[in-house]
Amino acid sequence: MASKDQAEYVDAIVQVRYAETDQMGFAYYANYFVWFEVGRTNFCRARGFTYADLERDTETFIPVIEARCQYKQRVCYDDELLVRTRVKEFHRLMLTFSYELLDRRTGALHAVGETRHVFTGSDGRPKSLPGKYRAYFE
Amino acid sequence: MASKDQAEYVDAIVQVRYAETDQMGFAYYANYFVWFEVGRTNFCRARGFTYADLERDTETFIPVIEARCQYKQRVCYDDELLVRTRVKEFHRLMLTFSYELLDRRTGALHAVGETRHVFTGSDGRPKSLPGKYRAYFE
Amino acid sequence: MASKDQAEYVDAIVQVRYAETDQMGFAYYANYFVWFEVGRTNFCRARGFTYADLERDTETFIPVIEARCQYKQRVCYDDELLVRTRVKEFHRLMLTFSYELLDRRTGALHAVGETRHVFTGSDGRPKSLPGKYRAYFE
Amino acid sequence: MASKDQAEYVDAIVQVRYAETDQMGFAYYANYFVWFEVGRTNFCRARGFTYADLERDTETFIPVIEARCQYKQRVCYDDELLVRTRVKEFHRLMLTFSYELLDRRTGALHAVGETRHVFTGSDGRPKSLPGKYRAYFE
Repeated sequence: MASKDQAEYVDAIVQVRYAETDQMGFAYYANYFVWFEVGRTNFCRARGFTYADLERDTETFIPVIEARCQYKQRVCYDDELLVRTRVKEFHRLMLTFSYELLDRRTGALHAVGETRHVFTGSDGRPKSLPGKYRAYFE
Repeated sequence: MASKDQAEYVDAIVQVRYAETDQMGFAYYANYFVWFEVGRTNFCRARGFTYADLERDTETFIPVIEARCQYKQRVCYDDELLVRTRVKEFHRLMLTFSYELLDRRTGALHAVGETRHVFTGSDGRPKSLPGKYRAYFE
Repeated sequence: MASKDQAEYVDAIVQVRYAETDQMGFAYYANYFVWFEVGRTNFCRARGFTYADLERDTETFIPVIEARCQYKQRVCYDDELLVRTRVKEFHRLMLTFSYELLDRRTGALHAVGETRHVFTGSDGRPKSLPGKYRAYFE
Repeated sequence: MASKDQAEYVDAIVQVRYAETDQMGFAYYANYFVWFEVGRTNFCRARGFTYADLERDTETFIPVIEARCQYKQRVCYDDELLVRTRVKEFHRLMLTFSYELLDRRTGALHAVGETRHVFTGSDGRPKSLPGKYRAYFE
């Protein structure tokens, strides 16, 4: 199912919510990381599985161990954004996603970011990603 | 431990976060329900137990089945608020909290609210509150 | 533009985010009110204007003065929901929306809610809704 | 008011809210950035001013242009944390805070992070920090 041919990145659409703005009049900085999560969820679905299933079926979790974001242009309420998600690095014990946040209409770049993850069981201990899921990230 | 003498209400202090404001320049309305939750957590502790322990030790959860809030005066970033929490009604299968949100310094009333809860197991099915915890809410 | 023929309700699609769950394993109760806001935003657009423009062009805000929600069935991460939004009551100084939260596939009802609003200027003082916008809510 | 003697760092206390957990059973990763903001707010107050006043009195804003966090140990509902905030770098046009997130009781390190900021007017354009505020960050 996963192959060299599969799209290198996956776009998710996010529309900025009023709840996500702050009194400065733009989207609050922590919310970009929520949008990155929307990007990851959508990336998994586009590759052929759901993260919800992965958690449920294999008791594997993919917590974040490092996150970063560079904010380039402010984002406003009701803006339509693309969260462009890529796997930057993947091996059995670690997974790094990179993100670009783009204006859906103009293509303007609003932010870039990265999240690094490990695989754990429900007890929080490291484990390796179950074999059948590895191909999805390659 | 629980007795007629115990305080009828418990006050929790909440300081409004920048994240909780929106572009209108005041706190976003959904966050009041988060503050009510802070009030509940603090109510439990003041009564002699923690909600975290109740969940962990008895696998009992207290999900919300109804919530309401009346917004009286806007709340600003950095305001110090009191969340005044009371048990309004309690029986074996149901629990209702009421809340007042007050300015900590002036005592001005910013909002009133209510949340109604049931008791469930980790499977989401109704159960009755374990006996040792009932006295805390009476 | 607004007429008797216009749809009585407007549906917005919401996909439950991981950020919106809590350790009970379902969506946290305050987030339903954020989804209601998504419903309102979408309602406005379907009626022919954007709430962002209304704020910007007329310096009119529509803060919430009362909100309520009844939770009927738990909502899980990645669930696709419909937020079905209606104007329940409208006059020059007040606006009430009602909401149904439905499973997009099964149509199962997860929650019902209501938000009541007033119209204010940027100073927070009541004003009446500018005339050109009234038809949108009728 | 600001002097070499002033404390190098300022500690804010944060108690993890139920709303801040996710279905993995720990605090959701984006919320750490909200806690960093609580750290900044508290840092300002400890240095002798409030960020709210700075915004209001001088129409100066301090938006984030870069943020990062390393997650070391998971954080649970009801945990009491210290957000230890320092100015890492400061000059007229730029400000960098660093953060340590510690367990209040054990002192265990849960996370470290950094946010980089610029100074802007309400129009979002860069400006330099008004003179009277510079000493607070030195």
